[in-house]
Amino acid sequence: MTYCVAISTQDGLVFCSDTRTSAGSDMLYSHSKMHRFHLDPGRMFVILSSGNLATTQAIINRLETEMENAELVNLRNCPKILDAAQYVSRIIREEQTKAQTSTAQSSVDTSVSLIFGGQIQGDDPAIYMMYSAGNFISNSDETPFLQIGETKYGKPILDRILTKQTSLEDAARCAIVSMDSTIRSNATVGAPIEVLVYEKDTFNSNHYINMTEDDEYLRQVKQAWNEAIQAAFVNLPKFDWEKRSTSNLQVVNEDFPNQTSS
Amino acid sequence: MTYCVAISTQDGLVFCSDTRTSAGSDMLYSHSKMHRFHLDPGRMFVILSSGNLATTQAIINRLETEMENAELVNLRNCPKILDAAQYVSRIIREEQTKAQTSTAQSSVDTSVSLIFGGQIQGDDPAIYMMYSAGNFISNSDETPFLQIGETKYGKPILDRILTKQTSLEDAARCAIVSMDSTIRSNATVGAPIEVLVYEKDTFNSNHYINMTEDDEYLRQVKQAWNEAIQAAFVNLPKFDWEKRSTSNLQVVNEDFPNQTSS
Repeated sequence: MTYCVAISTQDGLVFCSDTRTSAGSDMLYSHSKMHRFHLDPGRMFVILSSGNLATTQAIINRLETEMENAELVNLRNCPKILDAAQYVSRIIREEQTKAQTSTAQSSVDTSVSLIFGGQIQGDDPAIYMMYSAGNFISNSDETPFLQIGETKYGKPILDRILTKQTSLEDAARCAIVSMDSTIRSNATVGAPIEVLVYEKDTFNSNHYINMTEDDEYLRQVKQAWNEAIQAAFVNLPKFDWEKRSTSNLQVVNEDFPNQTSS
Repeated sequence: MTYCVAISTQDGLVFCSDTRTSAGSDMLYSHSKMHRFHLDPGRMFVILSSGNLATTQAIINRLETEMENAELVNLRNCPKILDAAQYVSRIIREEQTKAQTSTAQSSVDTSVSLIFGGQIQGDDPAIYMMYSAGNFISNSDETPFLQIGETKYGKPILDRILTKQTSLEDAARCAIVSMDSTIRSNATVGAPIEVLVYEKDTFNSNHYINMTEDDEYLRQVKQAWNEAIQAAFVNLPKFDWEKRSTSNLQVVNEDFPNQTSS
């Protein structure tokens, strides 16, 4: 399985993906699910992938091959990000049909779902979630994120934190916490974790990090978050019966906590 | 859909359930999924239910009817909690077979899964998760909780907080936060929320609360948790590039924050 999330804020885009692939619990591998396309200066695309790895690689190979052919519609010549999304979704449908045809004799699931995002100069940044059927949706201002794969464990923290106004770095930390929650709760999602923070109109992705399980920053975030969550519990309001039972207790002398005052 | 969770700590048991039942998105009803059995002074049982409502009610009715017949094995005369669990799992299998047979002409899913827990005097408290097949598991010391229904959204917070040593009240608050996260992220789970805190060896359940959506305590917990989560984000460690960009800023005079120092 997989977990990937993309976030679109007023300042740009955040992409985050795990790297665990599995074909049964005794066949765990690590494959990047974040595919970056650095093309001309005014054009930057990212694809996050979930599902059949062979189909994913066929799609990525096809996108890369067609970029070299200026006579075809491709990622280098799509005028708008929506055109690029429609192009990618067509490639998904075509490659998936091929994969289904060639594996028709077996029961293997060749489907994929992708998140496609980026920016073309003169157009706003955008993210799209592409279903295995090839149709796609964009995010909304109310829900500024899209997820694929094992989406449920990491959704509550995104729901609580993210708005269109969240800073890019806070959005990236939220994605990391969401990923960490998923990894803790589901063995089919695993580190290394890739994070890309794309600042609107820069057309580069120099804020890219790849964190292994023992990465120092990841360790710090996990520890700080765990401590904050534990501390948050202490301050939650008490039940009525706790207040009552507290008021029945003898008053403890705070300077000498082992001695009760008279 | 449904979300129910039961927790077993060194001090006793916590049960928490939502009440939303649906037969399609335009047929939402509210039904309690927490079934309490107060029998003799030394015996207390709770069942949390998920799945087909008709099958659930058939199981509960059967358990209640058989309690009146002293010649049958029933919840009044099982000597140990494990015997009670085996009895309940048999009733699940039998009632599910009946339901499947009587609805064989339709495609309705009549399956249920239950959490059964409680205590019999002279025995330790225990909780069991009963699969729709009728087999069951207990919790472990490492994972002191069991869930049924829409379990994924609310699992990370349980994984982070709960241990065998967690106080009963903190465990109950953790269940409420887990439930709130699920309700926010999934429309098929909804208030009122029922919570039962059972203190070991008391054989009563006087710490029972039923919270509607606008319940004052629920509102306080939700607000305090949301604020704590937002605050926790502020204190997460910064990315390297944020530190670098901060160090490039002019130093701000802390006494007069609108004035930069020379």
